[in-house]
Amino acid sequence: MDNTFLEKSALQVNDGVEQPPIVNPNAISRFKKFQHKMPSANEFVEGILCKNTTMLSKAITLVESSLPQHYTLGQEVIERCLPYSGNSIRIGITGVPGAGKSTFIETFGKMLTAQGCKLAVLAIDPSSERSKGSILGDKTRMETLCADQNAFIRPSPSAGSLGGVARKTRESLILCEAAGFDVIFIETVGVGQSETAVHSMVDFFLLLLISGGGDELQGIKRGIMEMADLLAITKADGENITKAEQSRILYQGAMHFLPQSESGWAPKTLTCSSYANTGLTEIWDVINEYLNFTKANGYFNKNRLRQSKYWMYETINSYLHDNFYQNPDIKGKLATYENAVLSDKLSSFKAAKQLFDIYTELAKKQEL
Amino acid sequence: MDNTFLEKSALQVNDGVEQPPIVNPNAISRFKKFQHKMPSANEFVEGILCKNTTMLSKAITLVESSLPQHYTLGQEVIERCLPYSGNSIRIGITGVPGAGKSTFIETFGKMLTAQGCKLAVLAIDPSSERSKGSILGDKTRMETLCADQNAFIRPSPSAGSLGGVARKTRESLILCEAAGFDVIFIETVGVGQSETAVHSMVDFFLLLLISGGGDELQGIKRGIMEMADLLAITKADGENITKAEQSRILYQGAMHFLPQSESGWAPKTLTCSSYANTGLTEIWDVINEYLNFTKANGYFNKNRLRQSKYWMYETINSYLHDNFYQNPDIKGKLATYENAVLSDKLSSFKAAKQLFDIYTELAKKQEL
Repeated sequence: MDNTFLEKSALQVNDGVEQPPIVNPNAISRFKKFQHKMPSANEFVEGILCKNTTMLSKAITLVESSLPQHYTLGQEVIERCLPYSGNSIRIGITGVPGAGKSTFIETFGKMLTAQGCKLAVLAIDPSSERSKGSILGDKTRMETLCADQNAFIRPSPSAGSLGGVARKTRESLILCEAAGFDVIFIETVGVGQSETAVHSMVDFFLLLLISGGGDELQGIKRGIMEMADLLAITKADGENITKAEQSRILYQGAMHFLPQSESGWAPKTLTCSSYANTGLTEIWDVINEYLNFTKANGYFNKNRLRQSKYWMYETINSYLHDNFYQNPDIKGKLATYENAVLSDKLSSFKAAKQLFDIYTELAKKQEL
Repeated sequence: MDNTFLEKSALQVNDGVEQPPIVNPNAISRFKKFQHKMPSANEFVEGILCKNTTMLSKAITLVESSLPQHYTLGQEVIERCLPYSGNSIRIGITGVPGAGKSTFIETFGKMLTAQGCKLAVLAIDPSSERSKGSILGDKTRMETLCADQNAFIRPSPSAGSLGGVARKTRESLILCEAAGFDVIFIETVGVGQSETAVHSMVDFFLLLLISGGGDELQGIKRGIMEMADLLAITKADGENITKAEQSRILYQGAMHFLPQSESGWAPKTLTCSSYANTGLTEIWDVINEYLNFTKANGYFNKNRLRQSKYWMYETINSYLHDNFYQNPDIKGKLATYENAVLSDKLSSFKAAKQLFDIYTELAKKQEL
């Protein structure tokens, strides 16, 4: 049994001035389950490569853990799985409230598994920062898919910040790919920066919308429409069919006025219905068309490489950030300086410089 | 004469892995002009408050300087001007290539000065990172406005990075407001992150477009359309009038589909012509309508406060960034780690952690 407990500090990253890292009580209870029998790195890696989803689950729990003693083992498992990763189609899925995202994922997912696809469904839920509730926590919302042998569903990880949640999801994605999953969904709710995080780790970004005059966009933060490679108007069934098609045409027109994406791909719009099981094969066709297009023009690989690089720098920046903003001396002074800036007593720039000078002095005295 | 040369290091901030700070040769030559007669802080501040534009110019040159010996004096001038700042309308202006931005600024600017407005025109030109060329460098493009007693035009500052350029522009804005300018334009070219920088220091954001089917948006980075409070289609004169109006209607329809801005303001569209002098008063009316709207609903002040806070944190983050990425040891290793990540030999996360551990060791040994 591998008992390498060498790491000094919790692997926790924070965005700016948020709460200090918390230890996830779920991690502690899962750890206790492990205590009898924590698999070794070899057992994890071999299990994952043999497509053993129980071992995959345990490995994801391990890398999601905030406990210092899990860090080294978790990172070793990831390192060894890395050469086996990369061979899946990574699809980000978000939607306006009411679009029926879970139902869509279940129906669309079932269509893929029926074709023999092995599908993993991960999630980034910003509200799980506080270690409670996750969009996939209630698996009964996707009962059929949960029971499907070709599907693997995982709730959003918890962490002290969105950065932490995103990083753990990306690490889990690597493990899922090593375990042989062909398609990986990363789901999030349309509330803000989580879309940017998802967008930075997927190949294709799908936005689910509902029909209507435009009001429903109130729930989506600006900038997300421009990330989408495909907009799908859901619930295009029964009396709503015509309205859904009208909305589709309007959105298609609006998309024409957004600047072109770097990939060269012109985003498309479709309607679909999970209830009537329509439009779903068309969505899959568009995804494949996108993949062929971006592989042919080189963007697919270029984007993957850029995302790897991005995550290295994102993580470095998170560490720099955290080291400063979590320092007790600095934390104690931030509010004072903020108030001075807000009441025009101190310029933003002088305040920043003074705080930074305090920090470098602390570094020298080795008080960081 | 104030000779406080106490600062240890150049006030230079860099975004990520860019070139090291360079000393601006223009700053050196301007410094030499100063050497006989560098005004004191009192002289600067009193001159500015008396609306002496020569002294304002010198003060802006001082704060734009990268030379360490200018830092303390520059910051003192800013601090003392700060209580007198804030009383202007800050308008960001960007546009697609070919929209006739300079001509627009001149014509629109002349309209304002003719009404008795005192107008300052600043610029953020990302290409001036390398200390050459600036969008307002060639002042002959706005001859009439340059000669106008109520107008003050300043080229973009130079700096080692966009962050540096933006910071100096914001500092200059404070000085211009203390000097009593009623309206301040901050111009930029539509090429990327400079719009975000401008958007973070203005009250209102104007996007200039040309008529056409949508192709012209190719020149604008995604996300900028969503920042705009007003879209103005230029060159609506002669044979182009109908086409301009058609474009306006299309853009207005497209804007309807973008999610609502936090201000609660629904962006408008207008056409205008600098040549025929039409549409300009309408643009000014919309700006005033926006100001009344956002002052009434509290967004105006809330936004100003948030921007001040933003600049404090932006500057801190720039310092943290710079301190890490400009460290010679780190700089020397970055490419190696990047390559390891790009060839899947090392996970993004492990690479980041290793680099950060190297950095903290250097800090302890006081080698930063």
